[in-house]
Amino acid sequence: MRMAGDKAKGATAYVTLEPCSHYGRTPPCAEGLIKAGVAKVVCAMSDPNPQVAGRGFAMLAEAGIEVHVGLLEQDARALNPGFLKKMETKRPFVQLKMAASLDGQTALANGKSQWITGPEARKDVQAYRAQAGAILSTSKTVIDDNASLNVRWDELPSQVQETIEREELRQPTRVILDRHHQLTEELKLFQSPGPIIRVANQGGDLDISLTSDEQLDLAKTLDALAAEHQINHVWVEAGATLASSMMQAQLVDELIVYLAPKLMGADGRGLIGALGLEEMQDVIDLNIKDIRMVGKDIRIVATPQLTKN
Amino acid sequence: MRMAGDKAKGATAYVTLEPCSHYGRTPPCAEGLIKAGVAKVVCAMSDPNPQVAGRGFAMLAEAGIEVHVGLLEQDARALNPGFLKKMETKRPFVQLKMAASLDGQTALANGKSQWITGPEARKDVQAYRAQAGAILSTSKTVIDDNASLNVRWDELPSQVQETIEREELRQPTRVILDRHHQLTEELKLFQSPGPIIRVANQGGDLDISLTSDEQLDLAKTLDALAAEHQINHVWVEAGATLASSMMQAQLVDELIVYLAPKLMGADGRGLIGALGLEEMQDVIDLNIKDIRMVGKDIRIVATPQLTKN
Repeated sequence: MRMAGDKAKGATAYVTLEPCSHYGRTPPCAEGLIKAGVAKVVCAMSDPNPQVAGRGFAMLAEAGIEVHVGLLEQDARALNPGFLKKMETKRPFVQLKMAASLDGQTALANGKSQWITGPEARKDVQAYRAQAGAILSTSKTVIDDNASLNVRWDELPSQVQETIEREELRQPTRVILDRHHQLTEELKLFQSPGPIIRVANQGGDLDISLTSDEQLDLAKTLDALAAEHQINHVWVEAGATLASSMMQAQLVDELIVYLAPKLMGADGRGLIGALGLEEMQDVIDLNIKDIRMVGKDIRIVATPQLTKN
Repeated sequence: MRMAGDKAKGATAYVTLEPCSHYGRTPPCAEGLIKAGVAKVVCAMSDPNPQVAGRGFAMLAEAGIEVHVGLLEQDARALNPGFLKKMETKRPFVQLKMAASLDGQTALANGKSQWITGPEARKDVQAYRAQAGAILSTSKTVIDDNASLNVRWDELPSQVQETIEREELRQPTRVILDRHHQLTEELKLFQSPGPIIRVANQGGDLDISLTSDEQLDLAKTLDALAAEHQINHVWVEAGATLASSMMQAQLVDELIVYLAPKLMGADGRGLIGALGLEEMQDVIDLNIKDIRMVGKDIRIVATPQLTKN
């Protein structure tokens, strides 16, 4: 608008989200459009934020501006799944990362697994981490791999490096499920930059109650991250146990699965834990959203089909 | 050439394979080109058939025709992998079909598996079967699934139906490893059209010696199919045990892997058998040649990287 200057008068503005009506970090966007003198606003979607919720459109309409809503709404929603999910459900958008050989193995029987995927896939993971507000993992993964679970600018894909300055790199909050207080200060996790939240039943940075089978309640953990830490978007990177718990609790919005061009044999370790299924109709069904090569590996993006509980 | 008539005089002919110099089912192709009066022949590749092997080119050159070889050779080779493999190695081209959930499971722990892949993938399998000279399987698969393992015109993809008349459908030879003589006449296999070869140690339609670990020698089986039954192209469709044996013996030229959009859990049955690997450097490495959606399933075509034995 600033660039358009006087040319905005009588013009049509195309926007992805309902212009806000309130003072936040910036003055209300609707007011800006009115002052600029636009004649028409074409908007992809209304704002799910209860502070806005149609009031932006009302403000525009009152000022005599013609308002149209719904153009390319699905595409606009895909731009910011974390914000929408949290606004609509008070729970963050959850992506679950998995990596395995083509036959679904994440490690040999003896636990060896470095490296299953190639350098391009690992860079791709760095790009996903950089987009998330939090990385959720377990003390087991942190300890077994001595993983720092942060974003390293040097390891980002070059097209992402072009959009983020090294100095502006924001570290996601690392949220570690540490029910048995196994994390120790000498781990790489604590030597690398970025905030850390240890989740436990008692004595963590975030205390979460246990479920009937003595596990940290994952739904409550996610809700607390949204409510207490303003986290919209969680990237889950851990082992098969957390993956199957998250899937079975229907907490995953999107799976990002890297399959390496390797066969490791059925005596290795599986991509997700045992599910104890007796009937084919009980398997977890997915919808495939995207498949592509990332270096020599295959990347599959899928969404779980929600079942009626 | 017949269509070109007189226009062939002085022209350039582009051919995928060296024109033959011998009388087979048809008169020599090289002679045809000479009689037609072409001035130049551009050919993708020389004929690996020892009956031809450069003699076609020699015949053309003697007649004063300019000959160029090698244009788009890789593409020409891909047109007929079975013929080339058999000519060059005396062993058929072998495709191994596998189907699993995204987490690499082919059945639940109790053996239930119908259906993992969708109808489009099953049609795709019919198209692959139709291209093969033989389908290789085991008596276990035939009995467990009561599989007929033939080609059913009604189940071919419509674009394949357009190229083959129902009455012209040729059935591949079904080659069943039946070491313990478990096949019985009431099985669907024997009720459905198409030739069958039972492979055993003694008393089969084809008798093959055993390896040191008391298994039918798979390399010898393939060699016998090529030498005694003129089979160029074998489609392998069986369980994890044959798959891992074939892979470990380095007998597979191409893997066709269907991954269904499902998670079945690590307590299911794996895509290939146990490989007993101790080091990541010992895993079976593949090259991915193609990935695409077939209906709701993912199809991956891959070639094994040969290791030095």
